[in-house]
Amino acid sequence: MPDPIATLDEMRRILAMLPGPDLAARTAAVEREGQLTKPAGALGRLEAIAEWLATWQGRHPPDVRRPRTIVFAANHGVARRGVSAFPASVTQQMMANFAAGGAAVNQLCTAMDADLRVYELDLERPTADFTEGPAMTEEACARALAYGMMAIEPGVDLVALGEMGIANTTAAAALACALFGGTAADWVGPGTGVAGPALAAKTDAVAAAVAINRTAMTDPFEILRCVGGYELAAIAGAVMAARLARVPVLLDGYAATAAAAVLFAADPHALDHCLVGHCSAEPGHRRLLARIGQAPLLDLGMRLGEGSGATLAIGIVKAAAACHAGMATFAQARVSGPAAT
Amino acid sequence: MPDPIATLDEMRRILAMLPGPDLAARTAAVEREGQLTKPAGALGRLEAIAEWLATWQGRHPPDVRRPRTIVFAANHGVARRGVSAFPASVTQQMMANFAAGGAAVNQLCTAMDADLRVYELDLERPTADFTEGPAMTEEACARALAYGMMAIEPGVDLVALGEMGIANTTAAAALACALFGGTAADWVGPGTGVAGPALAAKTDAVAAAVAINRTAMTDPFEILRCVGGYELAAIAGAVMAARLARVPVLLDGYAATAAAAVLFAADPHALDHCLVGHCSAEPGHRRLLARIGQAPLLDLGMRLGEGSGATLAIGIVKAAAACHAGMATFAQARVSGPAAT
Repeated sequence: MPDPIATLDEMRRILAMLPGPDLAARTAAVEREGQLTKPAGALGRLEAIAEWLATWQGRHPPDVRRPRTIVFAANHGVARRGVSAFPASVTQQMMANFAAGGAAVNQLCTAMDADLRVYELDLERPTADFTEGPAMTEEACARALAYGMMAIEPGVDLVALGEMGIANTTAAAALACALFGGTAADWVGPGTGVAGPALAAKTDAVAAAVAINRTAMTDPFEILRCVGGYELAAIAGAVMAARLARVPVLLDGYAATAAAAVLFAADPHALDHCLVGHCSAEPGHRRLLARIGQAPLLDLGMRLGEGSGATLAIGIVKAAAACHAGMATFAQARVSGPAAT
Repeated sequence: MPDPIATLDEMRRILAMLPGPDLAARTAAVEREGQLTKPAGALGRLEAIAEWLATWQGRHPPDVRRPRTIVFAANHGVARRGVSAFPASVTQQMMANFAAGGAAVNQLCTAMDADLRVYELDLERPTADFTEGPAMTEEACARALAYGMMAIEPGVDLVALGEMGIANTTAAAALACALFGGTAADWVGPGTGVAGPALAAKTDAVAAAVAINRTAMTDPFEILRCVGGYELAAIAGAVMAARLARVPVLLDGYAATAAAAVLFAADPHALDHCLVGHCSAEPGHRRLLARIGQAPLLDLGMRLGEGSGATLAIGIVKAAAACHAGMATFAQARVSGPAAT
């Protein structure tokens, strides 16, 4: 990856200056919704999504013509502790699968007419094993955040953020545990499909990570540095950059949401421009969603990562934008409104 | 509408001879799922949907290239009892809105790249007010069923079924109450947005309909005749014809599901080729889904009807088919499988 000069303090400063909602665009969206040919509220969350899009794209009507799925990939030192059902080499192998168009996210991007970009973060150099100390140096963590920021390019109007990294549900569980408390067991699940001794090893790894790094984890960015990973830091960076660029975000599953939750823990409004695409079957995800106050758009028992659930949710957001922009008003269609009562 | 000669006994005979699952196609789908580059089960319901598609299209791989949304529209005599927030004339006005492309379902069909067909059933002649006796004669009910059957045309590979008809959540509640028991209040909700005295009138209408038609409602088809409606009978007919034509079905909200539930009550396997696209905000829908053993694909608080929720779910089914057909296998992609444990 390239080598932007950045520090965690710079990242803290960027977080403090994220722009707020565009209230004029929101008001325009709310007013138009009330005139469309349907009973008030009958499109349910599609109406709220259209308002959210307008608010965070900062324009009315909002539009989703250039959605993009971004997948960040990295490796984790903790993988050597047998916390995944798959060997760490699968991260690299999946890069070739993404490039060849053979992964689930490739099919989903085609189905949703979304662009796909996959970024590797030093796959040959995993983070340190965070059961023995911080996963990253401050410099490496800030660099990964900045790298993620650079992935938000002009012209994209909706971004779905996902990840690929063997062992990263272990990192997600450690992040969630350090950010929100509870025991390691509260946050650990089967991930790619571990059970029995491997699941116990995973839980032990999370507990050890949180314990050994406790004094170093003085704020959410330090938590990210100590028990996160490169792809998770990149996601956090991308979330911030998307806010700056007025690009609404769909978060994928447990790992992506845990990465974004670092920002939420630092500022509860930091994710107001984000929706969570789906609820993963990984049990910690539902718990995490409750902590950050997000209701997922889909709940289909998926637990693949690689941006798959967020990409599928692009279709919902597109549909919301299409209804909002394309429907006739009662006046245009000469349809009677509700009877006066 | 045209005038096919049909009787309810013919419909009962058709229901008894619906084809079963294509087990060879299902087996082929299950075998392929196990080889795709993802942890087993990681695509959750998308995997089950791909298997369902193969099973009921009767081919492997399944495919969704020509999905179609079909909306049946009719008027209801019970509308005169003030059970809806909108006047009955809105049914006809919405036909013009559909034709002009201004309704929600038009935008959703465009977003999902689905075909849309809207069929009117004698809008100028509503059913009889079923609080005073049967809504339909046997002949009229059988004709509406047959009309719905004719809407399933060759070449379509997935159909979303919806409706438009002021007062038809009243009919849906009466159907559900007569089919599955409970009180009128158990099944009645705000529909287009009624409350207070109008909601009480709606509940009273359902209770009266079920009481006055009780002795006539000797089987599910008689229930459909007594407390259903033309568009609801057409949906039931379309569900049967789709099974015969090996076209999987997505059902929309409360009214469409209640119509299909007539078939379920007659044969619990009659809807095995159907999924329910979404859970409506209309409270009776969730209760009804539990009775027919269906888990909706989406739950977005929508309550519009006109096939909107089922159409939105077409995107999920397309995505499932795309993943199933397009993903690489572990062998093709040279990705390592799970570590032996």
